[in-house]
Amino acid sequence: MKLATCQNHTRDGQLMVVSRDLSRAVAVPHIAATLQQALDNWAQAEPQLQQVYIALNQGEAASAIAFDAARCLSPLPRAYQWADGSAYLNHVELVRRARGAEVPDSFYHDPLMYQGGSDAFLPPCAPIPLRDEAWGLDFEGEVAVVTGDVPLGADAAACASHIRLLLLVNDVTLRNLIPGELAKGFGFFQSKPATAFSPVAVTPDELGDAWQDGKVHLPLLVDYNGACYGKPNAGVGMQFSFPQLVAHVARTRELVAGSIVGSGTVSNHDRSVGSCCLAEQRMIEIIDTGAAITPFMKVGDTVRIEMKDAAGLSIFGAIAQTVVKHD
Amino acid sequence: MKLATCQNHTRDGQLMVVSRDLSRAVAVPHIAATLQQALDNWAQAEPQLQQVYIALNQGEAASAIAFDAARCLSPLPRAYQWADGSAYLNHVELVRRARGAEVPDSFYHDPLMYQGGSDAFLPPCAPIPLRDEAWGLDFEGEVAVVTGDVPLGADAAACASHIRLLLLVNDVTLRNLIPGELAKGFGFFQSKPATAFSPVAVTPDELGDAWQDGKVHLPLLVDYNGACYGKPNAGVGMQFSFPQLVAHVARTRELVAGSIVGSGTVSNHDRSVGSCCLAEQRMIEIIDTGAAITPFMKVGDTVRIEMKDAAGLSIFGAIAQTVVKHD
Repeated sequence: MKLATCQNHTRDGQLMVVSRDLSRAVAVPHIAATLQQALDNWAQAEPQLQQVYIALNQGEAASAIAFDAARCLSPLPRAYQWADGSAYLNHVELVRRARGAEVPDSFYHDPLMYQGGSDAFLPPCAPIPLRDEAWGLDFEGEVAVVTGDVPLGADAAACASHIRLLLLVNDVTLRNLIPGELAKGFGFFQSKPATAFSPVAVTPDELGDAWQDGKVHLPLLVDYNGACYGKPNAGVGMQFSFPQLVAHVARTRELVAGSIVGSGTVSNHDRSVGSCCLAEQRMIEIIDTGAAITPFMKVGDTVRIEMKDAAGLSIFGAIAQTVVKHD
Repeated sequence: MKLATCQNHTRDGQLMVVSRDLSRAVAVPHIAATLQQALDNWAQAEPQLQQVYIALNQGEAASAIAFDAARCLSPLPRAYQWADGSAYLNHVELVRRARGAEVPDSFYHDPLMYQGGSDAFLPPCAPIPLRDEAWGLDFEGEVAVVTGDVPLGADAAACASHIRLLLLVNDVTLRNLIPGELAKGFGFFQSKPATAFSPVAVTPDELGDAWQDGKVHLPLLVDYNGACYGKPNAGVGMQFSFPQLVAHVARTRELVAGSIVGSGTVSNHDRSVGSCCLAEQRMIEIIDTGAAITPFMKVGDTVRIEMKDAAGLSIFGAIAQTVVKHD
């Protein structure tokens, strides 16, 4: 099943069921007005939404309209939680090697994770507002899950059963604000402005065989200024599966339905597949030549993040954003 | 105006207007079912809520019932944002001195702040569930504000106008998980389990002269196991006002209505007023004697956090919690 949230000039938008091929969509106000409402009441809502999805794919949803990703908000325009892991250790290893540091052994069995701001996500095709180019704007292509209610102390096996939806992420980052913030010891804050998510969120079954061991075994396609910048496989090098990442959150607190938990920047050891963020290329340049050459994003730059199935069809629609100056 | 959220077996509870003396309360479904709904639509809701509040205080609200803090949820049982500053530098100075470190000069003009989990807050009189006493459970008494919508880039003067409500906080912390998390560089995560807030949130005018310069100039009263543990004045030693803390968030992103921004642990230089967390006493012990003596909270321990006006009446009601074992 595929779900999206359409702009209707309310804070949470209008829940839409989207056809598998992303061509058609239908509002379902008789089931749930918003995606959060559906997640709050998933046991009742999910079978009803599935019925609509089946009819829509068979061309039998009378009130369906053309699906337009440009009219979408984030599937959850605002959420109660956005917690982002850093599960691809190749990314961490590059950052560390670039500054001559080792990766601590603990990083291989204890996930890195930060708490993100979740009150105002960017729509998937909306501009990225930037107040100051000197802040070093970067994209980060990721995969994330949306959970149901997860009890305090749930282990990874239990958490696997609480994964409701998958979606793609642009974890927008202000790289040049990071060193100062990390030196303060409290982690990221201003360096993580509003995040963007893909137009469509999908239930895990939509991925078929590509959803295995709590990971998505497909390339994440990142284009920067119209050219392919990275296509690493999201199932390769992911040290912690999504159920493990959710369990990391649940170790000391419960999660409520609609919590979003991210993978961190997708990154493969194989350099030929490129990168899902500019910082990683800069780290490779530092390791190889002693200095970073790739600049961060400038006003007018574009980024596109998408994932395709074995038949080449877009699964989640594309995050497609342009950097704009915000005064 | 005073507002609370009563348990009604929905996720967001029932918005109630509470009388100034905290004796009576009345539901206002014709204005807003929940506090988040009122905040989403504040310009329309606020004057209507004020009318109810005036009538309630005059004994003219026919459907009013006795107010019972024990039936309250957090004013926002789940919120879209919980960002907590560390504005009382005496607290930071003690932590640093205890480990022989200086406070960096930047800490006096650039706020410390971390992003907290906001999907599931503890009710004000609910137990604090603890899976493992070895994690070092501590309370942290704080004050916080709830904002309206704040535009990206708003300065402190602008942010002052977006402060809607004030409330008290128990920023529950697992002290023994902090060193490991800070060493990883991503800030607090598992060390910050679910937070609790006071039963009642109040508009700033309720504080009268005690609300000045964006700070609350009243003692925060913290009792631990039935005895006074701290009573520092929240208006003393607060390096950054609430408008400055909100502006810190807004520097790189907008805030949506219902965002909660906290002060950090209230702490005065005057040691005779005690502390609002156990860790601070432990730091003083380390500085004075070389070793911490005060243990962290154990199962069965209680904490009470309250603030009283000049006449000795409780402003927000009390956070009153007991630690319970969670298996």
